[in-house]
Amino acid sequence: LSRLIRDRAGSTDAMLAAFGDEALLRAALRFEAGLARAQAEAGLIAAEDAEAIAAACVDLPDIEDLADAAAHAGTLAIPLVTLLRERLAANSPRAAALLHKGATSQDLADTALMLQARTGAALIRAETERLVSALTALTRAHAATPMLGRTLLQGALPITFGLKTAGWLQGVAGALARFEAETVAIQLQLGGATGSLAGLDGKAIEVAERLAAILGLPAPVTPWHARREGLAGLASALAILTGAVGKIAGDIALLAQNEVAEAFEPRVAGRGGSSAMAHKRNPTGCQTALTAAIRAPHLAATIVSALPQQHERGLGGWQAEGAVLADLFQLAHGALAAMAPVIEGLEVDTARMAANLAAAGVGTDTGESQTLVARALASLEKDR
Amino acid sequence: LSRLIRDRAGSTDAMLAAFGDEALLRAALRFEAGLARAQAEAGLIAAEDAEAIAAACVDLPDIEDLADAAAHAGTLAIPLVTLLRERLAANSPRAAALLHKGATSQDLADTALMLQARTGAALIRAETERLVSALTALTRAHAATPMLGRTLLQGALPITFGLKTAGWLQGVAGALARFEAETVAIQLQLGGATGSLAGLDGKAIEVAERLAAILGLPAPVTPWHARREGLAGLASALAILTGAVGKIAGDIALLAQNEVAEAFEPRVAGRGGSSAMAHKRNPTGCQTALTAAIRAPHLAATIVSALPQQHERGLGGWQAEGAVLADLFQLAHGALAAMAPVIEGLEVDTARMAANLAAAGVGTDTGESQTLVARALASLEKDR
Amino acid sequence: LSRLIRDRAGSTDAMLAAFGDEALLRAALRFEAGLARAQAEAGLIAAEDAEAIAAACVDLPDIEDLADAAAHAGTLAIPLVTLLRERLAANSPRAAALLHKGATSQDLADTALMLQARTGAALIRAETERLVSALTALTRAHAATPMLGRTLLQGALPITFGLKTAGWLQGVAGALARFEAETVAIQLQLGGATGSLAGLDGKAIEVAERLAAILGLPAPVTPWHARREGLAGLASALAILTGAVGKIAGDIALLAQNEVAEAFEPRVAGRGGSSAMAHKRNPTGCQTALTAAIRAPHLAATIVSALPQQHERGLGGWQAEGAVLADLFQLAHGALAAMAPVIEGLEVDTARMAANLAAAGVGTDTGESQTLVARALASLEKDR
Amino acid sequence: LSRLIRDRAGSTDAMLAAFGDEALLRAALRFEAGLARAQAEAGLIAAEDAEAIAAACVDLPDIEDLADAAAHAGTLAIPLVTLLRERLAANSPRAAALLHKGATSQDLADTALMLQARTGAALIRAETERLVSALTALTRAHAATPMLGRTLLQGALPITFGLKTAGWLQGVAGALARFEAETVAIQLQLGGATGSLAGLDGKAIEVAERLAAILGLPAPVTPWHARREGLAGLASALAILTGAVGKIAGDIALLAQNEVAEAFEPRVAGRGGSSAMAHKRNPTGCQTALTAAIRAPHLAATIVSALPQQHERGLGGWQAEGAVLADLFQLAHGALAAMAPVIEGLEVDTARMAANLAAAGVGTDTGESQTLVARALASLEKDR
Repeated sequence: LSRLIRDRAGSTDAMLAAFGDEALLRAALRFEAGLARAQAEAGLIAAEDAEAIAAACVDLPDIEDLADAAAHAGTLAIPLVTLLRERLAANSPRAAALLHKGATSQDLADTALMLQARTGAALIRAETERLVSALTALTRAHAATPMLGRTLLQGALPITFGLKTAGWLQGVAGALARFEAETVAIQLQLGGATGSLAGLDGKAIEVAERLAAILGLPAPVTPWHARREGLAGLASALAILTGAVGKIAGDIALLAQNEVAEAFEPRVAGRGGSSAMAHKRNPTGCQTALTAAIRAPHLAATIVSALPQQHERGLGGWQAEGAVLADLFQLAHGALAAMAPVIEGLEVDTARMAANLAAAGVGTDTGESQTLVARALASLEKDR
Repeated sequence: LSRLIRDRAGSTDAMLAAFGDEALLRAALRFEAGLARAQAEAGLIAAEDAEAIAAACVDLPDIEDLADAAAHAGTLAIPLVTLLRERLAANSPRAAALLHKGATSQDLADTALMLQARTGAALIRAETERLVSALTALTRAHAATPMLGRTLLQGALPITFGLKTAGWLQGVAGALARFEAETVAIQLQLGGATGSLAGLDGKAIEVAERLAAILGLPAPVTPWHARREGLAGLASALAILTGAVGKIAGDIALLAQNEVAEAFEPRVAGRGGSSAMAHKRNPTGCQTALTAAIRAPHLAATIVSALPQQHERGLGGWQAEGAVLADLFQLAHGALAAMAPVIEGLEVDTARMAANLAAAGVGTDTGESQTLVARALASLEKDR
Repeated sequence: LSRLIRDRAGSTDAMLAAFGDEALLRAALRFEAGLARAQAEAGLIAAEDAEAIAAACVDLPDIEDLADAAAHAGTLAIPLVTLLRERLAANSPRAAALLHKGATSQDLADTALMLQARTGAALIRAETERLVSALTALTRAHAATPMLGRTLLQGALPITFGLKTAGWLQGVAGALARFEAETVAIQLQLGGATGSLAGLDGKAIEVAERLAAILGLPAPVTPWHARREGLAGLASALAILTGAVGKIAGDIALLAQNEVAEAFEPRVAGRGGSSAMAHKRNPTGCQTALTAAIRAPHLAATIVSALPQQHERGLGGWQAEGAVLADLFQLAHGALAAMAPVIEGLEVDTARMAANLAAAGVGTDTGESQTLVARALASLEKDR
Repeated sequence: LSRLIRDRAGSTDAMLAAFGDEALLRAALRFEAGLARAQAEAGLIAAEDAEAIAAACVDLPDIEDLADAAAHAGTLAIPLVTLLRERLAANSPRAAALLHKGATSQDLADTALMLQARTGAALIRAETERLVSALTALTRAHAATPMLGRTLLQGALPITFGLKTAGWLQGVAGALARFEAETVAIQLQLGGATGSLAGLDGKAIEVAERLAAILGLPAPVTPWHARREGLAGLASALAILTGAVGKIAGDIALLAQNEVAEAFEPRVAGRGGSSAMAHKRNPTGCQTALTAAIRAPHLAATIVSALPQQHERGLGGWQAEGAVLADLFQLAHGALAAMAPVIEGLEVDTARMAANLAAAGVGTDTGESQTLVARALASLEKDR
C-alpha cells in the first residue's frame, strides 16, 4: 500500500524515516511511557506502575493492524492505548488503568508529531548548512567571474557569477534563519481532555514540565490544541526555504540550456540520463528541487487555511496537519539534498560566460558586483 | 519508511492500493509489454520479441531497490528498463534492444499514472453513487420534516430537512457529473523523446492506437506531454467533489452539537470515542471528510499552478503531478467512504428539530420546501 | 481608494468595467426592478407598483456612500433597499413596502455577480477565440518549420515549430471548452430568506422563471445559496485557461532569450522597454500572462476551499467569492488580451531555429510532426 | 473602474488608502526625488538638479492616464519617468537627463511597495494591539467564568471562558510577534539595471544609504530584486495573523448560534441586520474576519509560489506581488478592525454558559483553567 517510489523520488531516506510509521509509533510510545514516569516523579502514581507502563511501551505494535484500527477509531490514541492496556492487563491491572491518565488523543498526536518534527528540523538544519557552505565556497570562487546579468529573461548588463550565487546564498541563509526561529513551535502538548489540565490532581503543570524534560521538548506556557499559529509558521518557513532552493534550481536549469551552457550539474553515473536520448544530460537535482518548490507553498497554505479551528480542539483541522507537515519536511529535505551536491560539484564554464557576455554587446563593467559579494559574505559571517 | 498510519486514516485500502507501489509497477510493466505487442501488431518488431518482452514484464521487481534507483536516476523508466533488459539479455538480446523502443520516460510515467487513475476513477464513481443513493433515500424520507433553516449561523426561517439534504445531494451529483466529464483526460501517453512520434518508423499513430486498445485507455489525438489542462481539470473536479462532501460533513457536525442535537452519525462500535471522555461521541466520519476538504483544494491548485510547463516536456511540473493526484484520489475516496455510511445510518431526531424550530419562534411555514425537494429529485432523475 | 494602476496592469478596461462598482450597482438595480416586474407578471403585485419600483431603480446611487453603508451593514442589499425605499416613500409607499419582497441579501448579491459573470464570460470567450484563431494561423504557417525540441530544458530531438504551437492551441482550445461547460453555473439566484421560496405566496417558482427571463439568465432547478460547486468549477476553469495561456507565455519568453533568439513578441512602440537599458526588449505580454498564471490557481483554490458553507446560507464563504471571482475574470482576460497580439504578431526567426537545431547535432528528422499538426487541427475543426 | 464596494466591505478606509493609487504615486515620486537628493548629497549630481527633480515630483500626475500608460509599457516607472522628464525638459534639461539615474523600474516598484507596506504595517500593529488589549481585558474578566469546553464540536469537559479567550489572545499575540519580526523585509530597493549597482559611479552604496535615510527605510545589505524570501515571510505572517483572528470569529459565531447563545457581537445600529428577516442579528464582524481568513492563505501562497524568480530580476513573479500583498494587508486589517470592537463589546451570557454546562452533565470542575489563564497573561506581560 505504500507510496515508496514516488515519495523516495522527492525526499531522502532519512526524512522518510523520520516521518515514517515506525518513528510515529516510537514517538507515541515514548509519550505514554514518559507521561507515566513524569506522573511518578510528581507523586501522582507509583513508580512501579510507571515502570510497568514504560515496559509495555517497548515493543513496536504491528503497524498494519494499528493503521486499520486508528482509521476506524478516528484517532491513533484509542487503539494504541487499548493495545497497551491489553499488554498490562494480566500483570499490572492497576498500571493499565493509569496509562494515558490525564491525556487526550490530541496530546499524543501532537507530541508525537513534534518529536518527529524535532528530528526533521535537525535534518533540515544540517542539510541547509551543507548547502550554505557550498554556496559560500562557490561565491568566493566566482566573486570576480564576469557574466551577463539577465532580467525579465533578457540579457541586461554585466555582473559577476559570484553576485548571482551570493543572492542564492543570502536567500537560503535568510530562509534558514526564519526556519530556526519558527522551530520554537516544536513543543510538548499536554492539556488533557479539554486543554484545562483536568485529571491530573492539580499537578498538571509539574507533570507537563517533567514530561517535557523526559522527552527533550520545551514545555509550552499553556496547551495549544486549538492555537496552531506556531505550526503554520513552521510550515510557511519550510515552504519559503524550499522556494529559496527552487530559485537556485531554476537558475541553474536556465544556465544549463544548450544555447546558454554556462553552468551544469556535476556528472553523476546513472543520474540525469534519458530513457530515449543517450546524448542528454538532464538537470535531475534541479528537477527534484523545482518539483518541491511547486508543491510546498500549497502544503503550507493548507496548514494556514486550517487555523480557525473550533473551540478547545477542532474537527478536521488539526487532523489534517500531520500528513501535510510530513510532506513539507520531506520535500524540503529532498530539495536541499538534491541541490547541495549540485552546488558542491557545479561545473562552471567561465569561457562561455565571457563569450555570452561579449555576444550581448553590453560592455564588461561589472559595476560594484565584487563589493556586493563582499558585503553579502561579511553580513552572513556576522550573523553566525 | 511508509506512512501507512496517516494515509490510512484519510483514505481507503482500495484507493491506497490503486496508487500504491505495486499498482504503479504493474502499470509500468503493462505499458512496456503492451508497447512491444502493439509494435508487433504493427509489424515493427517480431512477435517473438514482443512475447519475450511481455514475459520479462510479468514478475514484479523489488520495490525498494527500484525506488532507490528511480530516485537516483530522476525517473522510474531508466532503472526499470535497465532491469528488464537484464532479464532479457541472456536469452533474447534482440528483444532487449527493442524494449521501450520509441518511448520516453514520460510516456511510461504518464500512462502508468493514467492506468492508476482509471482504477481510481472507478472507485470514486462507485462510492459517489453509493452516497448519492443514500442521500436520495434520506431526502425522500424527510421531504416534509420541518426544521429551522439557518443562515449566517443564525436561526432564520423554517425549511424541511429534506430541502437541506436535497442540496447536499445536488451538490454531490453535480460534482460527480463534472468529475465524469473530466475523466476524458485519462488517456494513453505515447509521444517518444520529444513528443514527435519519432523512432517508430512512421507507424507511431498505429502503434499508439493499438497500445491504447491493449491497455483499454483512449488514444489521444496527439501526445500531451506539456499540455496538462486535462489533469488540472481532473484534479479540480476531485477537489470540488471533496468539497461537496465536506459541506455535508460540516452541516452534520453542526447539527450534532449537544445544544442542537438534531442529527448524528450512526453509532459504530469502536468509532468516534474519546481517549479521555467516555461520554463523547465524536463525528469521526465528518472529521475524515472535513480533513479531506481542507487539503484537497491546495492539492488541485498545485497541479493548476504547474500548467506552464516548459517546451516539449517540462522540468519539475509534470514530475510533481503523480504524488499530488494520488493524494487527491485518496482523500476524495476517503471522504466519500466516510460519509456514505454516515448518510445511510444517519440518526435524525425530528422531535428535536421541531423543538428547536418552535424555540426559534419563526413560525412553521416551510415555504415551498417540498416543491423544491420534488424538483431537485426530478431533475436528478432526468439527468441519469 | 481605487486600485486602478495595479489592476489595470493585469487586466483590461472592459473586464475591469464588467466587475466595477457601476456594473455591480446596475446589476443590483436590474435585480430589484426585474423582481418587481416578475411579481407583477405573476399577479403578486400591481403593475403600477412594479413600474414605480423599476423607475426607482434607474438612477445610480452615490457609490462611496453606498460602499460605506454596505461595509457597515455587512451586505450591499440592506443599504441599497433602504435607499430605494426612500426614493419610493413619498410617491409610492405601497411600492416601497413591496420592494425586495421574497428576496434575501444573497439573492441580490449572487444574481448581480452572475450578471457580471455573464458579461465577463462573453469577454473571455471572444478573446480566447481571437487567440485560438491566431494560434491556428501560426500553426498552419509553421507546420513544417524545423526546430530543436527541448525537454527538461535540454535540447532533445527535432520537431517543427507548428507542433509546438499546435500544443499551445490545443491547450487553449481545451481550456475554453471546459470554461464554456462551466458557464452553466451562471444562473439566477432567488430563494428568499432561507432558500425555501417562502414569502412569495406560493408563486415563487413562477416568479423565479419570469425573473430569469427578464434578466436573461437561466433559472436554476432550486436555489443554490449553499451549493457553490458551480462557481468553484467556473473559477477552476478560469484558472486552467489562464494556465494554458501562461504555458504559451513561458515558452515564448524562453525562445526570446538572447542565446536562443528563435521567437519574439512583436515590437510595439512604448512597450517592453526598460527604464534603465535602452537596448532591452522585454517580453511584456508574456509577463502579464505569467503573472496571471501565478495568481489564478490560488484564487480558484480560495473558492474551492470555501465549498463547505454552513447550512442554508453560510458565514464568510460566499461573501469571499465575489472579489475573488472578479480577480479571476480580470486576470484571465488580461492574460488573453496580452497574448493574442503577441501570437498575431509573433516574430519567428526560422533561420535561427535551423541554426540552433544544427548546433545541437541531433539530426533533422522531425518525426511525424506534420502528421500530428494535421491531426490536431482536424480534431479542433471537428469539435467546432 | 474601481472595486470600491467589494474592497470596502473587507477592509478599512485607512488600509485601502495606504495601498491606493495616490499612495502608490506619492511613494514613487518620493523615490525619484529622494534618489536625486541622495545623489546630490553623495556629490554625484548638482544640488540644484536634485531640487529641480524634487520640485517636479510634487504634483500628482493624472492617475487614469498613468494607469493606461503603465499597463502599456509593462511597468509604472517608464511612463512616470517620461512624464517627469517632460516636466523638467523646458527649464531643467540637465536634471531631466539625471532623473532616475542608476535606478531600474523594479527599484521604483519595490521601494514604493515597501513605503506602502511600512504604512500598512503601522496600521496592522495598532489595530492588533487594540485587539490584544480588548482580549486581555476580556480574559481577566472571565478568568473564572465556567462554561462547557467543546472538542470536535462536541461537549467535552468544563473550562472557564477566560481560558478560551486566553487562547485567542495568545494566538493573536504570537501572530503579531511573527509579523513584527517579518517587517524586517520592509527595506529600500536600489540595485540598478541588473542589481549590480552599476551606473552610480562607484558611489552606489553611499547613495543607497542616503536614500534609505531620506525615505526612512532600512538599507539592505545588497539589492534583493530576485531574492523575495522576506516578502514571502511578511505575506505568510499576515495570513497567519488573519487566521488567528479568524479563529476568534469562528468561535464567536458558534457561541452565538441560537441554541448555544453564550456570546454575541455587540448590537450596532444598522449592522448585522437581514434584508429578509427583521428578527435576525447576524455576526457581521465575524463574517468579515472569516472571509479574510478564507482568502489570506491563498494570497500568501501566491507569493511563496513565486519565489523561484529567474536570474537577476524575474519575469512575472515579482510583478505579481504588489497586488497580492496589498490584498493581504487590506484583508488582515479589515479582519482586525472588524473583530476589535466585537471583543470590546462582546455580550457574554454567563447564565447561559452555566446552563449549557449543567445540561451537558459533565460536572463543574474547571481543572486548572484559572492557573492557565494566569500563566498565559504573565507570559504575554513578560514578552512585552
